[in-house]
Amino acid sequence: MTNWTEIDECVRGWLKEAGDKIILSFQTALQITEKSNPNDLVTNIDQETERFFAEHIRQRFPGHRMMGEEGFGDKLEDLSGIVWVVDPIDGTTNFIHQKRNFMISIGIFENGESRLGYIYDVVLNELYFAAAGEGAYWNGEQLPRLKETAVERAIVGINSTWLTSNKLLDPAITLIPLVNDVRGTRSYGSAALEFAYVAAGRLDAYITMRLSPWDFAGGKIIVEEVGGKVTNLRGEPLNLLEKTPILAAKPGLHEKMIEKYLKRGFQ
Amino acid sequence: MTNWTEIDECVRGWLKEAGDKIILSFQTALQITEKSNPNDLVTNIDQETERFFAEHIRQRFPGHRMMGEEGFGDKLEDLSGIVWVVDPIDGTTNFIHQKRNFMISIGIFENGESRLGYIYDVVLNELYFAAAGEGAYWNGEQLPRLKETAVERAIVGINSTWLTSNKLLDPAITLIPLVNDVRGTRSYGSAALEFAYVAAGRLDAYITMRLSPWDFAGGKIIVEEVGGKVTNLRGEPLNLLEKTPILAAKPGLHEKMIEKYLKRGFQ
Repeated sequence: MTNWTEIDECVRGWLKEAGDKIILSFQTALQITEKSNPNDLVTNIDQETERFFAEHIRQRFPGHRMMGEEGFGDKLEDLSGIVWVVDPIDGTTNFIHQKRNFMISIGIFENGESRLGYIYDVVLNELYFAAAGEGAYWNGEQLPRLKETAVERAIVGINSTWLTSNKLLDPAITLIPLVNDVRGTRSYGSAALEFAYVAAGRLDAYITMRLSPWDFAGGKIIVEEVGGKVTNLRGEPLNLLEKTPILAAKPGLHEKMIEKYLKRGFQ
Repeated sequence: MTNWTEIDECVRGWLKEAGDKIILSFQTALQITEKSNPNDLVTNIDQETERFFAEHIRQRFPGHRMMGEEGFGDKLEDLSGIVWVVDPIDGTTNFIHQKRNFMISIGIFENGESRLGYIYDVVLNELYFAAAGEGAYWNGEQLPRLKETAVERAIVGINSTWLTSNKLLDPAITLIPLVNDVRGTRSYGSAALEFAYVAAGRLDAYITMRLSPWDFAGGKIIVEEVGGKVTNLRGEPLNLLEKTPILAAKPGLHEKMIEKYLKRGFQ
């Protein structure tokens, strides 16, 4: 039998320890490296933080596997057993430019099923957490179930970039009408922060054209635990082994956004 | 002689007192009213906070005048004497939807010249402050002068809405090329927060098509005090008595953004 309480206690301790190291790192110069392009950045702190989690997980839970952004995890071709999906710093550009608005994100799955989700705002010391079937919490306080919201009253997380052009949907018939109809849009530069905001009811929806599993794994568990829906832009379930576009939204609003706006892009 | 030290001490005390009242208001139901349209919202707390400032300013400094968003100030046709420009809650939609990411913003001018600027993040208890000629501060810590940044490395505050269409500039030849060239964009839903982020170097620029004086008065003073430029989209000085489009940006970057992108919209 898996001892989920033990796992949860470990994660909380490691998040705090990793967060403290990140805060300390603000006092020294970052080593910044470009990955796939000049705007895809990684720092030594992203790498050290992921290594910290990989080493602790392997030592304490040798039967578990880990998928991570920076390559210290395992190469996974399936989701059998217990799998940790870790983003050591979600929002690396914010980490570099702002020293805030970045998150540690962790999702833990068992045979592909959601178990535990964590989004930790290191700078504000705020923890968003969910255990499947047991609700979601912000700093220990239970988050209420999400209620329906009309499109016209919705605040939607979406980055301007997707409105200029994207490979998936013609903005002119999908995202631009959507942006014009909603109450407002926001963009924070960290997918995990935007999932956390959807879970806490601070955003009504979050839409993006391309996320990796580590960007959404923790957030998906937390948002679903308060009744939110997290799918691709056709409303289909996400594949945890692939990059994917994502719509995370309140129930009802999710269906309306697909039906009235996004669906046009697939016809 | 005006005693600016006395004024500064008053503002700091009033900001704390007003902030405490706002935090307390989270425990009671908000009264929300639509202003010019369903997305232009005001609450009883915006109004009570502005009245709080108006009453205190009139009582303590009867010779001063005040311009405010919610109508408790004076109707100004000129900027003679000492003028306070107050936004009791900048980011009302965030206040309602998020209970965070809103600011109290105050700019104080003497015969139209900048004197003191305040942006107070009530929830995070963070104060951005500048006194003309004496530098800008974040929680008492001096903010460094802003340095030049290349367009390709810039993080720009801009709301998606302006990319769908706007009355001032054709996005296709101005904002869309800009968004495609920069490192990234963010949008926080509070002009004062975005000015504060520009002043603190967390955003390299902030661009918006329409702000009222209370939205930019405090922020302009703070951004300029760290060497940032705050003008309309033609690079001309702002008029404190009118609504205006705004570009606030690091030195150098400001000129490049106008020359390479925004200027096309005016030809």
